[in-house]
Amino acid sequence: MTLLQNTLSSISSINEDAVAHAQQRLDSLTKPPGSLGILEDIIKQLAGITGQAIPKIGKKTVIIMAADHGVVEEGVSAFPQEVTPQMVMNFLNGGAAINVLARHAGADIACCDIGIATDISHPNLIVKKIKYGTDNMAKGPAMSRNEAIAAIEGGISVATAQISNGSTLLATGEMGIGNTTASSAILAAFSNLPLRQLIGRGTGISPCGLSAKEIAIQKAIDINKPDPADPIDVLHKVGGLEIAGLTGTILAAAAHKVPVVIDGFISTAAALIAGKLEPKAVQYMIASHVSEEPGHSIMLDMLGLHPMLHMRMRLGEGTGAALAFHIIDAVTHIQAEMATFESAGVSTAF
Amino acid sequence: MTLLQNTLSSISSINEDAVAHAQQRLDSLTKPPGSLGILEDIIKQLAGITGQAIPKIGKKTVIIMAADHGVVEEGVSAFPQEVTPQMVMNFLNGGAAINVLARHAGADIACCDIGIATDISHPNLIVKKIKYGTDNMAKGPAMSRNEAIAAIEGGISVATAQISNGSTLLATGEMGIGNTTASSAILAAFSNLPLRQLIGRGTGISPCGLSAKEIAIQKAIDINKPDPADPIDVLHKVGGLEIAGLTGTILAAAAHKVPVVIDGFISTAAALIAGKLEPKAVQYMIASHVSEEPGHSIMLDMLGLHPMLHMRMRLGEGTGAALAFHIIDAVTHIQAEMATFESAGVSTAF
Repeated sequence: MTLLQNTLSSISSINEDAVAHAQQRLDSLTKPPGSLGILEDIIKQLAGITGQAIPKIGKKTVIIMAADHGVVEEGVSAFPQEVTPQMVMNFLNGGAAINVLARHAGADIACCDIGIATDISHPNLIVKKIKYGTDNMAKGPAMSRNEAIAAIEGGISVATAQISNGSTLLATGEMGIGNTTASSAILAAFSNLPLRQLIGRGTGISPCGLSAKEIAIQKAIDINKPDPADPIDVLHKVGGLEIAGLTGTILAAAAHKVPVVIDGFISTAAALIAGKLEPKAVQYMIASHVSEEPGHSIMLDMLGLHPMLHMRMRLGEGTGAALAFHIIDAVTHIQAEMATFESAGVSTAF
Repeated sequence: MTLLQNTLSSISSINEDAVAHAQQRLDSLTKPPGSLGILEDIIKQLAGITGQAIPKIGKKTVIIMAADHGVVEEGVSAFPQEVTPQMVMNFLNGGAAINVLARHAGADIACCDIGIATDISHPNLIVKKIKYGTDNMAKGPAMSRNEAIAAIEGGISVATAQISNGSTLLATGEMGIGNTTASSAILAAFSNLPLRQLIGRGTGISPCGLSAKEIAIQKAIDINKPDPADPIDVLHKVGGLEIAGLTGTILAAAAHKVPVVIDGFISTAAALIAGKLEPKAVQYMIASHVSEEPGHSIMLDMLGLHPMLHMRMRLGEGTGAALAFHIIDAVTHIQAEMATFESAGVSTAF
């Protein structure tokens, strides 16, 4: 069996007994039942994943996958392709938004070159380069089927190494100029909605660039005819190497029973592929935020995920997921530390 | 001049020069302009409030106002009135959700009895009791005009003491069985929407109780005829003592140029009164979350505030605000610590 097949077959449902025990404990705490909303859902999910009614979260890691996109030659991005390696160096040197937010959340960062168009070098860079950026999907497949599988498996090995190294909560992050175009194309392949509803301004493209983006995606769909019944077909024809890497990251988290916080639009495209490959993987996903990209909430709905943060963010990198770490930490404290009705001498409802 | 008049006249607009400097700094950081969404709005707001382009937040305090409501005799709540003092003792003993969340956010709690129906005693309880719960608004005014003003002034003195004691960020919290009824009544007095759209299940009342709640509020409006042009008239006729106390808390924060995080439905009712008394006070408010109460998002829209967290919470106490503390801390780190395009050698947009 390949690493991908092996990982998919290792993913099992979460522990419903632990969910029930967590629910009992939640209902004994001094608050109206269910009044903490999504916080209570997260506690139950963490309980089901870890098998503990009072789950603990230890080491947290944001896994950032970086890669380039051949489709940028269609003029789909506000920033030049050279920004991908420049920003990755910024991550490695600690100066980007994700560094600040991860530090503040007490999280590590693992940054992986899975397909940047140039070579960069840094002692902390994890290199799993599959190719020097994807090909232009508007002219043919972004990558071969084997390259897509290799990129997923790259993501599986990066995440597995982090878990072996003690991480108990992962988050997805990414960098790749052009990657909202690939993410919109993936969503287009899986949905019947008009393309116009699935694309947005990405990092801030002009109305003219937005139109170029729509044309490029339409060409990519027409030329490649991605098959929505075959998620790897969609991924290799109109996806991206970092998206494939994050798909692997998410599948590895699920296979190792580690919760994984999904960041924004690009991360959710990877989650969509992961959920199509193995629906049980969705049980391990925690949605962090809903971004400005119009397709993001559509994807989250397709996955049945409920984002906590509505911040109008559109940065990626894992920034929304890093903010959500605080909330996930907070819910574990709620379950562990709150008084019960009995211990506090508080009357329950009529 | 009374303390209230003095406080209102001390509220001035935020510093627009500092906002402009904060914007300049934000646009120099390694991210597409505006891509951090509401995080950037908060940075600019904090800059305008503090006068610093790179604002710092030090000590944080959740001010919890607790009081009872005579309207509970109409059967409007799922919990008996004795839960108000029981939960306040739980706050003072550290066992409630707000204690856990405030501790996790590194925040203090200041808990004030501004009108609990019984007397309780604890060394950390701040006592500013105006009366032993409001009267039943379905039969007449909840309190006199002078009592409402005294409760606002109680809130002003509690908040001012916390600010004098070093707090640089306040949040509002409350406890009071029956207080979603008072908050819906305040909203009804200020809006022309059908009552059915402004009421919810509070801590979890039955459909039958919900109907009792609607009838009680309609009676209160019909008997008292609160004047929407006179916010104190609305507050004393259909409000609550803890709502008045939080109105004072918010006004004191604005007068002392301290940002104040608004929690849920009841806190936002207090914010609505504060904003009607002095519209400039709204510039000092940061919305934390939008709750399950259907009237909450209507109130936030009336104030022009954008909640960050969509958690389906309905607990109050300040719990949503305490979660937002993490995000507010995070944005101050963003502004202080991120690399600039120049320092990181990253290309700007085309």
